[in-house]
Amino acid sequence: MSVLIVGSIGIDSVKTPFGEASDVLGGSAVYASVSSSFFNKAFIISVVGSDFPDEYMELLKSYEIDITGVEKIPGQTFRWKGYYTYELNEAKTLETQLNVLSEFDPVLPDSYRNLQDPHIFLANIDPDLQIKVLDQIKNPELVVLDTMNYWIENKPESLKEAMSKVDVMVLNDGEARELTGEPNLVKASTKIRELGPKRVIIKKGEHGALMFSDDSIFSAPAYPLEFIFDPTGAGDTFAGGLIGYLSDVHGNKEEDYRKAVIFGSAMASFVVEDFSLERMKILTWDDIKERYYQFKTLSHFELI
Amino acid sequence: MSVLIVGSIGIDSVKTPFGEASDVLGGSAVYASVSSSFFNKAFIISVVGSDFPDEYMELLKSYEIDITGVEKIPGQTFRWKGYYTYELNEAKTLETQLNVLSEFDPVLPDSYRNLQDPHIFLANIDPDLQIKVLDQIKNPELVVLDTMNYWIENKPESLKEAMSKVDVMVLNDGEARELTGEPNLVKASTKIRELGPKRVIIKKGEHGALMFSDDSIFSAPAYPLEFIFDPTGAGDTFAGGLIGYLSDVHGNKEEDYRKAVIFGSAMASFVVEDFSLERMKILTWDDIKERYYQFKTLSHFELI
Repeated sequence: MSVLIVGSIGIDSVKTPFGEASDVLGGSAVYASVSSSFFNKAFIISVVGSDFPDEYMELLKSYEIDITGVEKIPGQTFRWKGYYTYELNEAKTLETQLNVLSEFDPVLPDSYRNLQDPHIFLANIDPDLQIKVLDQIKNPELVVLDTMNYWIENKPESLKEAMSKVDVMVLNDGEARELTGEPNLVKASTKIRELGPKRVIIKKGEHGALMFSDDSIFSAPAYPLEFIFDPTGAGDTFAGGLIGYLSDVHGNKEEDYRKAVIFGSAMASFVVEDFSLERMKILTWDDIKERYYQFKTLSHFELI
Repeated sequence: MSVLIVGSIGIDSVKTPFGEASDVLGGSAVYASVSSSFFNKAFIISVVGSDFPDEYMELLKSYEIDITGVEKIPGQTFRWKGYYTYELNEAKTLETQLNVLSEFDPVLPDSYRNLQDPHIFLANIDPDLQIKVLDQIKNPELVVLDTMNYWIENKPESLKEAMSKVDVMVLNDGEARELTGEPNLVKASTKIRELGPKRVIIKKGEHGALMFSDDSIFSAPAYPLEFIFDPTGAGDTFAGGLIGYLSDVHGNKEEDYRKAVIFGSAMASFVVEDFSLERMKILTWDDIKERYYQFKTLSHFELI
């Protein structure tokens, strides 16, 4: 089993109430694949410019991530600059330079096409590109889709087509409300499921996550952190942990998904403890297991 | 065991995106005592005006609530008028008429003073009055304090004195941040506990509740409702269920508190399903037990 991830690789500059970091590694495919790699082998499809530092490529390789599908083309790498106030749930964008991402035409290398029943994560990127990647894969075991408000507003039809082709959609609460025009998240999730995905996972940042299917709702807590240094990448790290765990255990039952949501939440709770991937560099499997148990302690109560 | 509640009795007019209700029974002591009465006998200390309808007094009696401590004095009953937008977490006040509440001088009837080890809920009201009630009780088993932003802003010293005398404080996330000047809820709860209460329960509306003590954090989910007709009284109903359960089982262990938070959340999830106390009028113990189990189903996940 393996996890194939399409999304952005970028160079971020971010400022939070607790510090700042310039020209650090970022992007949806990066956060998701690093997180996923703790559970199973990850394969990235993305693009970088000729300015992309070798050390960042080496960093990805150090997680045994397959970067055969990362094309390097002339030009500048995608760049994002933003900041967070104490409202850490919402990133404020100062500047987005798509650069080489605007020319990205994802073509899967043969080695990716021949993956056995891969789990696919279509991380936040133009929905037309998400569809293009999906169309090149014969028998995906599971497809998870993420998006953002920009695509909801600017490419609603492409996004709906992408939604009709996937099993699980992950998005945050604001996006779920914007996509459906429905303030109530229970109703919003029903509307989203009517467009294709059998499951919807709504990320609520510091308030945890909700997962909806035909016959169940799961409410996952967030890990209450005293210090959140940088929320960048938390959502992609969540999704990477989720799909990484599912692919590792080859699970598709309700209880597998619930465990996957907790693993995703645990991974996200680590990545926000420092800028960029700093925390992930020293993260161990023991840390992850311990935090999983902490999520249990945090939310457990006895029956009456 | 018994629950003694001081707080307001009022006449509310409220409008939500789903309808409106005029001149209905409300007030912090009302919601808290009705909720608490499903678990144990409640005793109210409050005041009403000569206009207070007999039918509302009868309604309280129908829950076997002791209203000996409800003084009826010349003048108008406390009135609140407000509305909610789709942001159902936050009430917008159109008008507050304190009326007889401004003259309220709580003196406990002898029958209340002789209660054996009562559980006390100091519902939202002037902290000077909360202290005055507390000073008249010899051996409270447990004291729970609520407040609101108005007292944080206008009577901070009285509020701090009240906090120094109680075991548990319940407040919402916005109030916790305002009281401490600390946006992070983990840190805010530590600051609150430094002022007296050994436990702090932070209500987050549709995002559930967090309970903090010296050596534990508990994250309780909210019940995901498709229809929230009127959030008025949800916080007081939560606190009433919490203290009602604790007094009924005479519990003070971590697991008792966790169950109490779930019972409080369950009671709150019912009261918002209709205006005023309409839903509570037809609520049964079987409904409450069933919802408790639904909270378990909602939040349960297996260990790895």
